Amino acid sequence: MSDPSSSSSIGNAESIARAARRAFEESQLVATSERDVALKAIRDTLEAAKEEVIVANKKDMEAAESLAATGQLSTSLVSRLDLSRPGKFEAMLQGISDVAALPAPTGLVTFAKEIGPGLELHRVTCPIGVLLVIFEARPEVVVNIAALAIKSGNAAILKGGKESIHTATLLSSLIATALSKTSIPSTFIQSVSTRSEISSLLAQDRYIDLVMPRGGNELVKSIQNSTRIPVMGHADGICAVYLDESAVEEKAVRVVVESKTDYMAACNSAETLLVHESLINTLWPKVASALMDVNVCLRCDTATLAPLQNLPQAAQFVTASSESDYSTEFLGPTLAVKTVSSVAEAIRHINSHSSHHTDSIVTEDEAAMSAWCRGLDSANCFVNASTRFADGTRYGLGTEVGISTGKTHARGPVGLDGLVIYKYMMRSTKADGSVIADHEKAGKGYTHKDLQKGEPPF
Amino acid sequence: MSDPSSSSSIGNAESIARAARRAFEESQLVATSERDVALKAIRDTLEAAKEEVIVANKKDMEAAESLAATGQLSTSLVSRLDLSRPGKFEAMLQGISDVAALPAPTGLVTFAKEIGPGLELHRVTCPIGVLLVIFEARPEVVVNIAALAIKSGNAAILKGGKESIHTATLLSSLIATALSKTSIPSTFIQSVSTRSEISSLLAQDRYIDLVMPRGGNELVKSIQNSTRIPVMGHADGICAVYLDESAVEEKAVRVVVESKTDYMAACNSAETLLVHESLINTLWPKVASALMDVNVCLRCDTATLAPLQNLPQAAQFVTASSESDYSTEFLGPTLAVKTVSSVAEAIRHINSHSSHHTDSIVTEDEAAMSAWCRGLDSANCFVNASTRFADGTRYGLGTEVGISTGKTHARGPVGLDGLVIYKYMMRSTKADGSVIADHEKAGKGYTHKDLQKGEPPF
Repeated sequence: MSDPSSSSSIGNAESIARAARRAFEESQLVATSERDVALKAIRDTLEAAKEEVIVANKKDMEAAESLAATGQLSTSLVSRLDLSRPGKFEAMLQGISDVAALPAPTGLVTFAKEIGPGLELHRVTCPIGVLLVIFEARPEVVVNIAALAIKSGNAAILKGGKESIHTATLLSSLIATALSKTSIPSTFIQSVSTRSEISSLLAQDRYIDLVMPRGGNELVKSIQNSTRIPVMGHADGICAVYLDESAVEEKAVRVVVESKTDYMAACNSAETLLVHESLINTLWPKVASALMDVNVCLRCDTATLAPLQNLPQAAQFVTASSESDYSTEFLGPTLAVKTVSSVAEAIRHINSHSSHHTDSIVTEDEAAMSAWCRGLDSANCFVNASTRFADGTRYGLGTEVGISTGKTHARGPVGLDGLVIYKYMMRSTKADGSVIADHEKAGKGYTHKDLQKGEPPF
Repeated sequence: MSDPSSSSSIGNAESIARAARRAFEESQLVATSERDVALKAIRDTLEAAKEEVIVANKKDMEAAESLAATGQLSTSLVSRLDLSRPGKFEAMLQGISDVAALPAPTGLVTFAKEIGPGLELHRVTCPIGVLLVIFEARPEVVVNIAALAIKSGNAAILKGGKESIHTATLLSSLIATALSKTSIPSTFIQSVSTRSEISSLLAQDRYIDLVMPRGGNELVKSIQNSTRIPVMGHADGICAVYLDESAVEEKAVRVVVESKTDYMAACNSAETLLVHESLINTLWPKVASALMDVNVCLRCDTATLAPLQNLPQAAQFVTASSESDYSTEFLGPTLAVKTVSSVAEAIRHINSHSSHHTDSIVTEDEAAMSAWCRGLDSANCFVNASTRFADGTRYGLGTEVGISTGKTHARGPVGLDGLVIYKYMMRSTKADGSVIADHEKAGKGYTHKDLQKGEPPF
């Protein structure tokens, strides 16, 4: 984020941000159902332009493949760029229809009170405003985020990874074309392509309401350091499993092995295993064997290392841990292992070392479960369940906007309701209007009677 | 915020922040009802120490009075410092009991689903963590914020205006003494007294979760510029009233006059009046007269200025406006007046000039009301009601933590529920624990059945 911004990129960023704000404001008087009409138009436009999109995607693929050939890009990134794989384009289109089919998260009454005779107050969910979303080089994410923004009524400015530039630029322009035929302004979704534009956009706190960086810890921190705009994102995913004194074997093995190995690059995979000291010579070697059977390297403290010495696979998979291992997101087949003497010590370790994302206890003890769920300062506190469950789709949220490790606004897997806020609407039907003097000076006070939370007044 | 921090204040800030975090974490296993026990202990301790507090307050008063005598401090600030005014100390104590009597905002289930057989997910409200609250020189605010923090389960670090230092320091130490006799750690509420400590605390994003500046726009912006920690506050209060084409006289006069004059230093007072062009020679001169009768100066655009020329008070109260008047928080007896040709133009003007706080329309027209409440990007959208209603107590929120003009987490008057977030608790009761493979690989999928939102599982 430190590249110097030319004055032209500042001017450009400001006009993009202002256009987004205007598009958002204009859209507020458009009926909510028109958002679904717009999503259908986008789907149809993209469907008709499939060949053109695949041609643009080929350009990105060729550039990426030649970088990968010289080791400047990972092959997994190249494969994520590819929109021509069988079913991928169609899945992207289906994603739009799936989002359209969800209930709108706006226009819901979350609080309703009679303040006094003829004076009613409703708190109604509404879009946040203008979102700035920064994401990796996956072209279908452009379409996915555009759909989520439109469904929730938020205008959005998108910046994808530079490797997907040809595909992303074309997808954005097709989205604008589709919107221009609907009641939603065509500048409701805009894209930028350079880093210096991002840097200038982060100064536009007058027009932009929320920044959502989807990327590593470094990206999130550098954005938090360079803007007054609120940031919703997740930093690392340093998740832990704790085997409590009362843990039984089958649960322990299943939960630990899946939490670690199901998808090692995911943020909800386990990186740390804490073992109660009473299990060191009983359950722990069995769990360790199961992990080594699937090629997981174990970085152990002294106590957990000792009982593994005689296991045949130990020479290949077991090493001594260092302190930094307990704060590392390995994202691969390595697990840091540590002994603790109580659930309280496990909680303290996790609260000070984890990324407050997802942590699971394996236990039969109700008191330990309760301490775990209450004492752990993590978004997702699990009992006898794999950390891999921490996901918006698995939670049944309908869709997942992202996972937040922040402590305000939204936490954990974020669904569409993480893209809304609320406003208060107060309406007087008194013949002479309502003033506080009616209540406070005439000594009549307020009724503050709860009303049914039905439809919003407007 | 730009004063250079000495290394000792950084060290001190870090140890204060770390102690707050530890106090927060320890308190999570304490029963919620103990928070009310702690509030009672604080009330009793302060009550017993009244004389001592008044002595400390006298020191602050004397220093402030001598500064006021030489014009270095306003007399209104001096009067706000004074805890010895009849009833003030008792009101402060009663405030603690009032907060204790409110329902706890934590431990509420806001989402509950069966994910699959034997696997339940609950979303449960919980404290945010550690708050850093920066406020004006009003000693009773120390006690008020401590009570709100304890009730919501958040540890807090407080910094009051330097003019109240003797009183605030003593109150904080009495609070710590009271807490030391309860199950809540005595470092749950801490105070700092210098600006450089604040500057160092703003770097402690590892330990502090939310900063709440209660002060002017400059304070809020400078804090937003110097921290990665989320900030909840309100900047200006530039509120408007709009007289729509169909406005009737009695409502117009009552709403405008109270919105402007009831308490001119309040953030929910009107600073701008927009008048539909059709009312310029009819309703507008009547409203203008009512305002001038209570000594309000009117800064008018050309169209609203013309019809006032012949009114007797005009020479004293009416002047031509400049563009900057429409973005000014006068906080006094001045009102900027402007003509608009439609409700849409009024909305556009407010969205681009106001502080998104509170704006009221006077109208008889349902379509205009609906456009107003939907199109306005303000926390509080009012119809035929005074802007002065925008207040947590008047809304019946139980108490008011502050008013937020932000667009994330909490907006408008913020009650205790603005000091909480949530965590997800997932519990498996399956004999072999729960892994996603049970659902995704065995092809059984998820049930995602809504459960009754009753008590939290733990």
